[in-house]
Amino acid sequence: MRPKRYQKYTEKRVPARGTQPSKGKIYMYGKHALMEALRNTPQVVRKVFLAPDLLDTELRSLLDKHEIPTATLAPGKGKELVGRDAVHQGVIAIMNPTSLLISLDDFLATLPLLKSSTLPTSRSSKIAVAILGEVQDPHNVGAIIRSAAAFGLSAVLIPEHNQASITGAVVKASAGMVFHIPLVYIGNVNHAIKVLKEKGFWIYGLAKGGATSLGTDTFDAPSAFIVGNEGAGIREKTRAACDITLNIHIHARTESLNVAVSAAVVFYEWSRKHPEAL
Amino acid sequence: MRPKRYQKYTEKRVPARGTQPSKGKIYMYGKHALMEALRNTPQVVRKVFLAPDLLDTELRSLLDKHEIPTATLAPGKGKELVGRDAVHQGVIAIMNPTSLLISLDDFLATLPLLKSSTLPTSRSSKIAVAILGEVQDPHNVGAIIRSAAAFGLSAVLIPEHNQASITGAVVKASAGMVFHIPLVYIGNVNHAIKVLKEKGFWIYGLAKGGATSLGTDTFDAPSAFIVGNEGAGIREKTRAACDITLNIHIHARTESLNVAVSAAVVFYEWSRKHPEAL
Repeated sequence: MRPKRYQKYTEKRVPARGTQPSKGKIYMYGKHALMEALRNTPQVVRKVFLAPDLLDTELRSLLDKHEIPTATLAPGKGKELVGRDAVHQGVIAIMNPTSLLISLDDFLATLPLLKSSTLPTSRSSKIAVAILGEVQDPHNVGAIIRSAAAFGLSAVLIPEHNQASITGAVVKASAGMVFHIPLVYIGNVNHAIKVLKEKGFWIYGLAKGGATSLGTDTFDAPSAFIVGNEGAGIREKTRAACDITLNIHIHARTESLNVAVSAAVVFYEWSRKHPEAL
Repeated sequence: MRPKRYQKYTEKRVPARGTQPSKGKIYMYGKHALMEALRNTPQVVRKVFLAPDLLDTELRSLLDKHEIPTATLAPGKGKELVGRDAVHQGVIAIMNPTSLLISLDDFLATLPLLKSSTLPTSRSSKIAVAILGEVQDPHNVGAIIRSAAAFGLSAVLIPEHNQASITGAVVKASAGMVFHIPLVYIGNVNHAIKVLKEKGFWIYGLAKGGATSLGTDTFDAPSAFIVGNEGAGIREKTRAACDITLNIHIHARTESLNVAVSAAVVFYEWSRKHPEAL
């Protein structure tokens, strides 16, 4: 029983309107995000609504090139599709987020040979992935994906349940990085941990009061970093499955770090020790 | 002339409703933030609206202790005061944010003796401050204040113009840390830099393509970290006034880091070199 789970609210926000997950179809907004999609993964873009006064030759030529249907974004339609708080800049695209996701097996097949029973090779040690463990706020999810891409991680693993999925708000907060770093679909965190361990990964849980101080670990095996829920952190069972729990030393006046900040600091520390990954 | 300023939109968001700055009076929401205020700076809380079904003995006894007037939060009133996206949990307080701010002179007077013409003393070297330079998003402002508090910085300096001020959304995003770390009111960034330099501070600008790689600097003088605008970064003139521009090495696939993430990573790196500040 985890009665206190989700009762802490410091960081919880109501998801922005128009950003509710919807299987197979989400509204993505903003020109920057769409350009990133068109340049990297045009297959996810199904249809684009454009404000009639939008003049952007590059955008329009990319849409032509990939033969993506467009329609005029009528006044008021943007608000209806993505909510009034979303800065869509006259550009809204219907996107299929599931076509961004790959399976764990497919992802692992792209990695250099990993060994389960021996010390990791230097070739594989520069690999790290992030695992989202019930991160609720789409801004945090997007920010974590953005930081993972920035600090040279190889993928972000996203479980099916109790985890904010890829929405327009996530795409936006990731600054388009959802189109640059592999997003790996997993059934659940604990099963993924098992598979990764078999492949030689070391499993790190980001946890307040973790046994190992960030900065002391050399990350010389392939690393998987589990980022937990905003309020409750990582689940008990998941924590027990970690090889190492990582603590970020902070001032006593502060209860905790923002979850996306914790993740970024850990990814940064990993990249300091693996400059070759950048 | 800086024609491209603010035209980049990757990270810009429309400020959440109900969070517009308002001199002398803002609505703060959420129980956690209010408790932090009551425990640390009760003088900023003017009046509190409580949902009639809110049972919280500790909160009510703190309100009694500080003789803060309360009123019943009528249904629908919360939405009206702080917008429908704000998770207020039946707790909304009228707060005077200006009473949180102190002047630069008053702040500097609290510091150990700093010398302008000699090498900094070891006593003063453990001091660092953050300077906000046109950070627009209240979530970023709050997150930067939270991280500054977490990594042992001594203050956050907030200019009067072109900078998101302390609003309910900032208080919330700071996880109550606005009540734990000195917030220093400055007229403008460039003048504050001048004053800080005279006191022996080294001025660091967080800047993409900065001359110094984060990680190579030892931060052995009192340090001031300038965090720039989400899109445009720090102003040209401010950048020219920096002693050092700091670059965070990131992967080529990524254009930039989120501004609050950049700040947190720099503060973390500073705290690694000044564990005594934590």
